Amino acid sequence: MPTDPRDEITSVTNPRVKALVALRRRRIRQDQGVTLVEGYEELDLALTAGVRPTELYVCPDLSAGDPRAVEARAAELGAAVFRLSRPAFEKAAYREGPDGWLAVVPDVETDLADLPTTGNPLFVVCGGVEKPGNLGSILRTADAAGVTAVISVDPVTDWGNPNVVRASKGAVFSVPVASCDTAAFLDWLTGRGLTVVATTPDTETYVTGLDLSGPTAVLVGSEKYGLSADLLTHADARAKLPMFGRVDSLNVAVTAAVVTYECVRQRMAADS
Amino acid sequence: MPTDPRDEITSVTNPRVKALVALRRRRIRQDQGVTLVEGYEELDLALTAGVRPTELYVCPDLSAGDPRAVEARAAELGAAVFRLSRPAFEKAAYREGPDGWLAVVPDVETDLADLPTTGNPLFVVCGGVEKPGNLGSILRTADAAGVTAVISVDPVTDWGNPNVVRASKGAVFSVPVASCDTAAFLDWLTGRGLTVVATTPDTETYVTGLDLSGPTAVLVGSEKYGLSADLLTHADARAKLPMFGRVDSLNVAVTAAVVTYECVRQRMAADS
Repeated sequence: MPTDPRDEITSVTNPRVKALVALRRRRIRQDQGVTLVEGYEELDLALTAGVRPTELYVCPDLSAGDPRAVEARAAELGAAVFRLSRPAFEKAAYREGPDGWLAVVPDVETDLADLPTTGNPLFVVCGGVEKPGNLGSILRTADAAGVTAVISVDPVTDWGNPNVVRASKGAVFSVPVASCDTAAFLDWLTGRGLTVVATTPDTETYVTGLDLSGPTAVLVGSEKYGLSADLLTHADARAKLPMFGRVDSLNVAVTAAVVTYECVRQRMAADS
Repeated sequence: MPTDPRDEITSVTNPRVKALVALRRRRIRQDQGVTLVEGYEELDLALTAGVRPTELYVCPDLSAGDPRAVEARAAELGAAVFRLSRPAFEKAAYREGPDGWLAVVPDVETDLADLPTTGNPLFVVCGGVEKPGNLGSILRTADAAGVTAVISVDPVTDWGNPNVVRASKGAVFSVPVASCDTAAFLDWLTGRGLTVVATTPDTETYVTGLDLSGPTAVLVGSEKYGLSADLLTHADARAKLPMFGRVDSLNVAVTAAVVTYECVRQRMAADS
């Protein structure tokens, strides 16, 4: 079993380095059915979640400690392991101040039809959310809150976006994620018995006024425009958070977190 | 009333442009007792909140619409108004893709002793929170949730940091903010009758298991290390959010938001 890394890549124009840079583009990621995970913490969570990297890139000059344990773990899962010089790694890395770990992993998305829906499911549905930081934050909270899956409807940003992976702290590998257009989402909803709650300021109902203890899908909208008319129309209920201040909206990841944890509170109260 | 702007500043080496760049440094801001606010939305909120800018910089090439109304409003409040060429503005601005609005405003902080404490106050206390984005997000949520004030204990980042101002969407001007060291904070607590709740994973108590309907201070800790032993020791209660996932912590701004809105929920339930 080859746990020894291959020869070190030192050139910033090495074809593998160029291929890694190309994977920053959504189109290239989708064509190849892969995405990038960068950072030790994120990679560790991905491996723990059962992800099998196809390629692992390590920069001994940048990574703290002995890289051999993780290299061996990745190689055992079938990954080709490469060591990169610092200039080559910094060229390939997409973050500033990289920590010397970068891997190519299979696409993170699950087909909508394959999402788990048994038990008492709780879905968070992002309608057109744009910012990778918000999508990642929503995933990190969804992981903690035990959300069944997160669905992106009419996505502007794909789940494999390296900045989503990063902001999620690796939760994109532990929480099932799917994406689809509005029509496919509405189809999927049919017959699933979910209470669909649209978060929007255009209502008099507070989130705490709804029964969220059963199977639920919480819809949050885009940073600029909120939820589309189509999604609003098909929701069973609209709900908002109380707002007493001068700023006219909450951050979408904050809204998702507060509503998700209200669902958790109601479920725990119902169980006790 | 001089609503006409002075001559346009076209040189990137103009002393005023250099002075604006220098204000990115905390030390310079603190020496001069001022901070920067950039962006139309943030500036509008600052003006609405009663902030009186000392200087306003506008770049007609970058700002949408007619700048004269805001220029007049700022001039009426005593601001010196300057127009900048695009290169000069881009040099002075700290964001990428600036929208042509930048102002120098008085320091945003309130003395701890001057914070309002009447009624049924709710304080959010940040112990060593580092990231401007998190501090700004906490302020934006605090504004919406009607928090009395946000206090930074042993601050790593000052409230006047332009990235805090930006991430707060201007809420730094609508929510009173203060900062102090731990000793001064503990002094301030004495005799105020606040229930001090420390958020930490090291407890078996959930936030929803506490009575948060009275005067309360919610403590959240730094991104890396959580709350200091000193602050933990002096809290009346420790509380956590339920966590069911693989990622080992929630984002501090998310934690603050969920706990703050649990306080709001309990207060609204107590009132009804």
